[in-house]
Amino acid sequence: MATDPLPVAQELIRCASVTPADEGAIAVLERALEPLGFHCTRLRFGEIENLFAIRRSGGNGPHLCFAGHTDVVPPGEGWTHPPFAAAVADGALYGRGAVDMKGGVAAFVAAVADAVADGTADRGTLSFLITGDEEAEAVDGTTRVLDWMAENHLVPDMCLVGEPTSKERLGDTIKIGRRGSFSAEFTVHGIQGHVAYPDRADNPVHRLARVLHRLTAEPLDGGTDWFQASTLQVTTVDVGNPTNNIVPAKAFARLNIRFNPTHTAASLEAWIRGILEEEAPRHEARFSCSGEAFLTEPGPFVDALRRAVRASTGEDGALDTGGGTSDARFITRLCPVAELGAVGTTMHKVDERTPVEELRRLSGLYGAVIRECLG
Amino acid sequence: MATDPLPVAQELIRCASVTPADEGAIAVLERALEPLGFHCTRLRFGEIENLFAIRRSGGNGPHLCFAGHTDVVPPGEGWTHPPFAAAVADGALYGRGAVDMKGGVAAFVAAVADAVADGTADRGTLSFLITGDEEAEAVDGTTRVLDWMAENHLVPDMCLVGEPTSKERLGDTIKIGRRGSFSAEFTVHGIQGHVAYPDRADNPVHRLARVLHRLTAEPLDGGTDWFQASTLQVTTVDVGNPTNNIVPAKAFARLNIRFNPTHTAASLEAWIRGILEEEAPRHEARFSCSGEAFLTEPGPFVDALRRAVRASTGEDGALDTGGGTSDARFITRLCPVAELGAVGTTMHKVDERTPVEELRRLSGLYGAVIRECLG
Repeated sequence: MATDPLPVAQELIRCASVTPADEGAIAVLERALEPLGFHCTRLRFGEIENLFAIRRSGGNGPHLCFAGHTDVVPPGEGWTHPPFAAAVADGALYGRGAVDMKGGVAAFVAAVADAVADGTADRGTLSFLITGDEEAEAVDGTTRVLDWMAENHLVPDMCLVGEPTSKERLGDTIKIGRRGSFSAEFTVHGIQGHVAYPDRADNPVHRLARVLHRLTAEPLDGGTDWFQASTLQVTTVDVGNPTNNIVPAKAFARLNIRFNPTHTAASLEAWIRGILEEEAPRHEARFSCSGEAFLTEPGPFVDALRRAVRASTGEDGALDTGGGTSDARFITRLCPVAELGAVGTTMHKVDERTPVEELRRLSGLYGAVIRECLG
Repeated sequence: MATDPLPVAQELIRCASVTPADEGAIAVLERALEPLGFHCTRLRFGEIENLFAIRRSGGNGPHLCFAGHTDVVPPGEGWTHPPFAAAVADGALYGRGAVDMKGGVAAFVAAVADAVADGTADRGTLSFLITGDEEAEAVDGTTRVLDWMAENHLVPDMCLVGEPTSKERLGDTIKIGRRGSFSAEFTVHGIQGHVAYPDRADNPVHRLARVLHRLTAEPLDGGTDWFQASTLQVTTVDVGNPTNNIVPAKAFARLNIRFNPTHTAASLEAWIRGILEEEAPRHEARFSCSGEAFLTEPGPFVDALRRAVRASTGEDGALDTGGGTSDARFITRLCPVAELGAVGTTMHKVDERTPVEELRRLSGLYGAVIRECLG
């Protein structure tokens, strides 16, 4: 008889761990994992509670890490069932985090309990990388736990992130990469003057128009085997000059680029700096990258996941790199990483919920993943 | 012995006629002109006092109109001599309007007095078009007096505007045209969305960047015989989107064009509308023109002015179309119009002043203009 993930999922949802609060969520996992033979290390960075839990086999079997988070986005108003009550109604578990991703964490805990019970867990090492800082800044969360893992020689062979990747049916999609996100903002300086005497002025808006035209005139690339084309969106341009007979002194713009592995933050910055130097030599620019693009090339780990998906759900487990960003962007530097989890339809919405039956099937899917990966 | 323009200039300056106030300035002129045989018609439009004064000869001689204004810009702070005291110090007449253009009006009145005395005035018709609404909106001033003149069959053969056109020495510059001033502002609409899914959004900033690039990529023209090239200056672009993961719904821009007679407000509007239609079909646009470009082609009137300048001052009277705008832009639709007046260095500034000797030479210059034009 398979372990039911519902009780742990409910316990987790009842902790109102709106990012960055913990509210006892990590402790729920400690209480669940220690009886299963896990060594739990609470890692507090800044205000954030994180957890690394590991269960080592005696031999040299592979090390599969499950990565997830216990923080959730704010619930908002208008819920049918209170967002932290974990009510079950009409066969569905309601609550903030039911999908993203307390349900996924509970499903993996249940799968591990079964794997411990039937001995599969003894064929290798299982670990949990759990953070309370995924939905907000992601500064004191996964990235710092990874540093700690590397320092302590606890680098896994592969990592599964339990984000809700399924689009319509459980197992229909496995994410093997994500686009990177790069931002730039710059102020172009000119020389203020009267519009009637533009030869004595230097219009920064015209310079900025040339910069933006060059940045947006051509696609950044044509996409790759696994990625759609990179995209650049200018999100604001602001001058704030109320006077139509004055050439302004400066002009500001901000943009965001979602990029595939054709680019890096460094290559994008160099490209933009080059255009700025040519069109607007007097400028200030700031660049930031919230995550490089990454791709886990299909190989043994991805093959194992697809086998698990097919065996457990009958779905195809289509490989995908779309959508936003996740902590997988950090994990990629340590080991192959992929994302597989619940149907994400209601994530971040009011009345976030998952059918209890689907939660149990997710636990079964994760059990298949453990078998394939430690196999 | 020539009539001294100083007393009338002082009387006018002592009326604190900061636009649109009159403060008795028009009455000063009525009192000066009626004894010289002028028929004065006070024309009040809205809040504005205007004056049309005419002295007809018996015969069919030409009709020369002198156009000017009695309103002044606010004085500001920090004057050496009070701005409405009309003090004479170190040989200069101090006061708001000494240059722009109560001094010029007084100089023409004095020149007319001499022309009446020596019989020159009897060779034709002289008139004054005086407004109290030149420095502000120019809505209830010259343009409405011109309508009234046309209705009453009082259209002159030529008109001299007494603006301070001289750059360094009295008579060095005659303005025979002015560029037009045209403004446009438009809001480009797109479809708001998330930067990660730009295929579901339509970025109005990118559309606006294409519009502005096309508007500014090439010069509007190469100038003409009498005009420098037209210029377009984008004065502001504003989106006001604080969020760098949102494609905004709309983007706003405003621009001003100073244009020579190669263009008209209508041709500029059509050009901009065409580009907007192609690059940003969903937009709202507003256009305004505070004055079409105009040119009085050199001909008999301009020749007469140059002869007067040379005879009276020894200067060359260089023909010019530079600088801002003046009421000549309205008068051009009735008759040939040119501008000739004092050295404008201190106009609109604190301690606006004119050397008394130069004021008297201006009166002499205007006397020569009357002789040449009625001759």
